[in-house]
Amino acid sequence: MNPKQLAGEKAVEFVKEGMTVGLGTGSTAYFSVKKIGELVQNGLRIKAVCTSQATHDLAVSLGIPIIKMRDAGHIDLTIDGADEVDPEGHGIKGRWGALLFEKIVAVNSEKNIWVVDESKIVKKLGKFPLPVEVIPFGHRQVLDHFVRLGFNPVLRIDEDKEFQTDSGNYIIHLHLGVIEDPLQLDRTIKQIPGVVEHGLFPGIVNKVIVANDNNIRILEFR
Amino acid sequence: MNPKQLAGEKAVEFVKEGMTVGLGTGSTAYFSVKKIGELVQNGLRIKAVCTSQATHDLAVSLGIPIIKMRDAGHIDLTIDGADEVDPEGHGIKGRWGALLFEKIVAVNSEKNIWVVDESKIVKKLGKFPLPVEVIPFGHRQVLDHFVRLGFNPVLRIDEDKEFQTDSGNYIIHLHLGVIEDPLQLDRTIKQIPGVVEHGLFPGIVNKVIVANDNNIRILEFR
Repeated sequence: MNPKQLAGEKAVEFVKEGMTVGLGTGSTAYFSVKKIGELVQNGLRIKAVCTSQATHDLAVSLGIPIIKMRDAGHIDLTIDGADEVDPEGHGIKGRWGALLFEKIVAVNSEKNIWVVDESKIVKKLGKFPLPVEVIPFGHRQVLDHFVRLGFNPVLRIDEDKEFQTDSGNYIIHLHLGVIEDPLQLDRTIKQIPGVVEHGLFPGIVNKVIVANDNNIRILEFR
Repeated sequence: MNPKQLAGEKAVEFVKEGMTVGLGTGSTAYFSVKKIGELVQNGLRIKAVCTSQATHDLAVSLGIPIIKMRDAGHIDLTIDGADEVDPEGHGIKGRWGALLFEKIVAVNSEKNIWVVDESKIVKKLGKFPLPVEVIPFGHRQVLDHFVRLGFNPVLRIDEDKEFQTDSGNYIIHLHLGVIEDPLQLDRTIKQIPGVVEHGLFPGIVNKVIVANDNNIRILEFR
């Protein structure tokens, strides 16, 4: 089986009757959402919160009962993908541009599971470009600021226009190479006026389900 | 003369030919913008960046040449109001909901002047509610988080609906009473996912022009 499907479906074993579940975004979380849709068709009763418009549309098409984040007092479990995960369970997420809603859902979830294929497991974060969501007003100055910090920023362009997130903001990718101290970088980036959020998720995940072509392992954190 | 007008107009003495000037928002900055409009009518050549749609509309009506923030490589001087200023020059701004653009312009300006009437000068910040701009998605959870921190949050409602900023976000007012450590509070609030920016401006202003009914004083910082 495709490793993404293997990992994505495995995570769904942790979804229990009555839970409020956060649904992630991306090509691996896709399989989790599909599987949850199957279980819902077979009678599982849950409520779900979505981390992007794309996931919302998918979940609706599968008949999964959706609630708005504002009505979700409590999220029991969120299943999402990740772009890179290090040995401490720090990660980079958001290549699909959904990092803001993903992070808001994640920090408000009791438990977080990430589903990844083996290629996402790294010794140190940073090879994958770190996405940062920024307010369009003043994004040029934030970009300049990142240049001065040596962060190699690139504004994400789609079809000759700035890519816009579900919140109408822009994405800047930081090409960092190696992130030596994710916790410090988290604070440094978040403190810059004009930055809304970034895709560094330090200390958030509880379980990482890693699959390759023919097996699955589960990494446990905190 | 009205103290707001006295302070607002005094600041314009620091605007020089050829500058790129940040134009603030609110009832005192209003007088600065009006005065700059007068000088432009009389031949002063400057370019201006605006901190809100309201200020933009005012500046256009006065014939002040406006550039977009993205085209302003460098801002020489920004003149803006403030809601509270303490003896260190830390301040609270944003009662008009423009705090995000005001902060982006301020941190990207070489010099910042605030124009206030005497009532804004306080021993400690915090009596004035601190505005925090938050992403609508998950604002309920940010509100709950502020409750747990004891920050007495109130979501800003206008005519039975959530007030929306120029960026489409919501405002939560924190009723803090006294802010003992503005620098610490700055980091605490900004670090919360879902928070875009807040109205605490620590260590940013260079001059505060304070007026009462019949005199003006200038406080100098950093």
